[in-house]
Amino acid sequence: MSAGWFRRRFLPGGPLPAPRPPRPRASPVPYRRPRFLRGSVSCPGTTDTPRRPEARPVRCPARGRELPWNAGYAEIINAEKSEFNEDQAACGKLCIRRCETEEDQEWVTLCPEEFLTGHYWALFDGHGGPAAAILAANTLHSCLRRQLEAIAEGLVATQPPMHLSGHCVCPSDPQFVEEKGIRTEDLVIGALESAFQECDEMIGRELEASGQVGGCTALVAVSLQGKLYVANAGDSRAILVQRDEVRPLSSEFTPETERQRIQQLAFVYPELLAGEFTRLEFPRRLKGDDLGQKVLFRDHHMSGWSYKCVEKSDLKYPLIHGQGRQARLLGTLAVSRGLGDHQLRVLDTNIQLKPFLLSVPQVTVLDLDQLELQEEDVIVMATDGLWDVLSNEQVARIVQSFLPGNREDPHRFSELARMLIHSTQGKDNSLTAEGQVSYDDISVFVIPLNSQGQRNSRH
Amino acid sequence: MSAGWFRRRFLPGGPLPAPRPPRPRASPVPYRRPRFLRGSVSCPGTTDTPRRPEARPVRCPARGRELPWNAGYAEIINAEKSEFNEDQAACGKLCIRRCETEEDQEWVTLCPEEFLTGHYWALFDGHGGPAAAILAANTLHSCLRRQLEAIAEGLVATQPPMHLSGHCVCPSDPQFVEEKGIRTEDLVIGALESAFQECDEMIGRELEASGQVGGCTALVAVSLQGKLYVANAGDSRAILVQRDEVRPLSSEFTPETERQRIQQLAFVYPELLAGEFTRLEFPRRLKGDDLGQKVLFRDHHMSGWSYKCVEKSDLKYPLIHGQGRQARLLGTLAVSRGLGDHQLRVLDTNIQLKPFLLSVPQVTVLDLDQLELQEEDVIVMATDGLWDVLSNEQVARIVQSFLPGNREDPHRFSELARMLIHSTQGKDNSLTAEGQVSYDDISVFVIPLNSQGQRNSRH
Repeated sequence: MSAGWFRRRFLPGGPLPAPRPPRPRASPVPYRRPRFLRGSVSCPGTTDTPRRPEARPVRCPARGRELPWNAGYAEIINAEKSEFNEDQAACGKLCIRRCETEEDQEWVTLCPEEFLTGHYWALFDGHGGPAAAILAANTLHSCLRRQLEAIAEGLVATQPPMHLSGHCVCPSDPQFVEEKGIRTEDLVIGALESAFQECDEMIGRELEASGQVGGCTALVAVSLQGKLYVANAGDSRAILVQRDEVRPLSSEFTPETERQRIQQLAFVYPELLAGEFTRLEFPRRLKGDDLGQKVLFRDHHMSGWSYKCVEKSDLKYPLIHGQGRQARLLGTLAVSRGLGDHQLRVLDTNIQLKPFLLSVPQVTVLDLDQLELQEEDVIVMATDGLWDVLSNEQVARIVQSFLPGNREDPHRFSELARMLIHSTQGKDNSLTAEGQVSYDDISVFVIPLNSQGQRNSRH
Repeated sequence: MSAGWFRRRFLPGGPLPAPRPPRPRASPVPYRRPRFLRGSVSCPGTTDTPRRPEARPVRCPARGRELPWNAGYAEIINAEKSEFNEDQAACGKLCIRRCETEEDQEWVTLCPEEFLTGHYWALFDGHGGPAAAILAANTLHSCLRRQLEAIAEGLVATQPPMHLSGHCVCPSDPQFVEEKGIRTEDLVIGALESAFQECDEMIGRELEASGQVGGCTALVAVSLQGKLYVANAGDSRAILVQRDEVRPLSSEFTPETERQRIQQLAFVYPELLAGEFTRLEFPRRLKGDDLGQKVLFRDHHMSGWSYKCVEKSDLKYPLIHGQGRQARLLGTLAVSRGLGDHQLRVLDTNIQLKPFLLSVPQVTVLDLDQLELQEEDVIVMATDGLWDVLSNEQVARIVQSFLPGNREDPHRFSELARMLIHSTQGKDNSLTAEGQVSYDDISVFVIPLNSQGQRNSRH
């Protein structure tokens, strides 16, 4: 088995050069082989180095490194919001083995091909330190592989069987599965959902054991059996850019986009707010002068707005406060889904964030075989630092104007990722809506799709 | 003020004739003027008559009756599933008066136009008897008018004010409202949401007081200030049909479409299931032989499917069971949103349906001024009996093929509504996908849109 795995810890390095950054100064450490790999490949790794205060922003060490299987090209910038880069990433080949228990022998006979192979890309945008993002980058792929291996029999069947490695109880079982519309891709979606949950629990345990804190968003793309799965928990984003089209492949999960779910939870469990917050949303925080007046508000069951007479309890700090980039959950967190944050509490209180935070991703599926892929079709995955400054359409225009003219350049996808980040640094105001500049960490994957459809098959 | 209001109680009548039904034999009763109307208009009404067992299916009395303000054309068929038709409908002019309290005098001076005028159409598909549907048809418009009148000041302002009939507390208030993106249409959405809730509570009280039971779905369309609002709670549907396009204006709310919300509630409050049901979804109900096997399942947090080892508790009856038209909530109800059902319990148990049922509608907004309306553009609203047999596209084809050739017929919209119902009765197999026949009550509104944009304004 030829397996390649590549994981980066993105480092602070030298100052941002243009157009090409220097090689970073990173301290190599012994490579810890991810459990994900069972093949014989070894691969150099890097780890975090102390901050260099004079360097801001800073690029990652592995700019444009071509992966062994030519799967995707990443570019990362560290805005040094914290001592270590809170953006982390991982990508690699996903080798799914058959189950190894004795009961599976029958299935092995039925299914002579031993492996499913796919590809995996992931971006993690940490907060409260890089610990959760590093743990996620180290382990989420293992969780996913484990989840997929547990259902490998279902993945290679034409239709997911009602029973796994078992006997048929009811002759109509295939018909029941058919009527429910359960397809192989639903098993992969389920595996991604379970993997995120498993990884979240692991991060909770590890951080507690090591006395560390923090959380991270997670955006994962998996290509498997001719389909691309994009699982998102947080405010990173993936888009598909084709010659004439741009299509979002993920939705952002923030206190604003998940307002109703969050308010609903506070409605069901008011004790979660410990009498310190109001569940209701108002256009601004209310003051004493608002008492007795009728003001705009909305509650968990409302999409529209209405008016209510202000009572004293409405003057409390709102559960969700602020607009857009400033919106915060319990005055603390800008995202509503992600991994970690098990210990996170509102400052100077015992109010926990976790019950409102979900680790469950939303998964979208793209059928690569249906796309009639062209040479320049790519997926762009990036953390929020990019999307704060560039719209989907602006990114698509950069992709569509750059790639066709650079077909001969073997590093063009790396160059494109670099160009996307470059355009957020105020170097080229024509690219951003109002010449905006990003001061956030930014990570970008550019994934050429042309050969993913054929490549992702059993072998 | 010239106000027209029209409400029907759809009756069993004679056998289905073709192409034109006979006048029904209904017992006229004294007209009870809806509280909604404050003008001087009076209007004949009809009420339910005893069932005629030989007549099945039966048409309603008021086929194709042209409304005074030419607003919409309805056609109804009674399949006689119950003694009285469980489909009910209402439509009329919506006259929103200024508030009448003394505090509003200042606003009256600022807003010299005393009324907002709109139109209202509503379909209610009852279950467990017609009582809830009749109550809803009698009162939902009053609830809505009351809600809109309470915020009339906000409706006529360019931007909803932070405070209603009050003083400005913070000079930046308009900016806060602007940043939240709160528009006049959000107030109408909020009013519709509140009206559904108010009507639901009223139905609960009325049914309890009169010892009656039952519930109903509710689909409401309101045209106001150049916009069309469609509020839906249940499995009725509204679509927009234009010359080259068909667009759904509502989503159905059934145990299947709301699975995750319903499972989530059972996860939070397991006592709601009283140990009689399992929250988990399986492709079929599990049997003793499934014990110990790994079977397909999904829980509240999952969009995809996974496998679990079957335990004894998984053999209980599922919270949501069956597929498509057969899907039932707690083995009892085919819809997950609607009005009424406050007393509904699972047969022979004390398990209530109401906590799982929502009365909140989903509201979609159509900007009529942006549509470039053509002579033949219509909204088709219908109860599920129609959509069980005809797809959106099939309905659109019937509309698009019928209307252009019948421009001179003053009754063409009535004729179209009649034709749509006719096509569900197995008379013309080419119209339905597989010559399917509906045995359900069916109600259809065909609403010509051409003049709604101009008509809906203050006067």
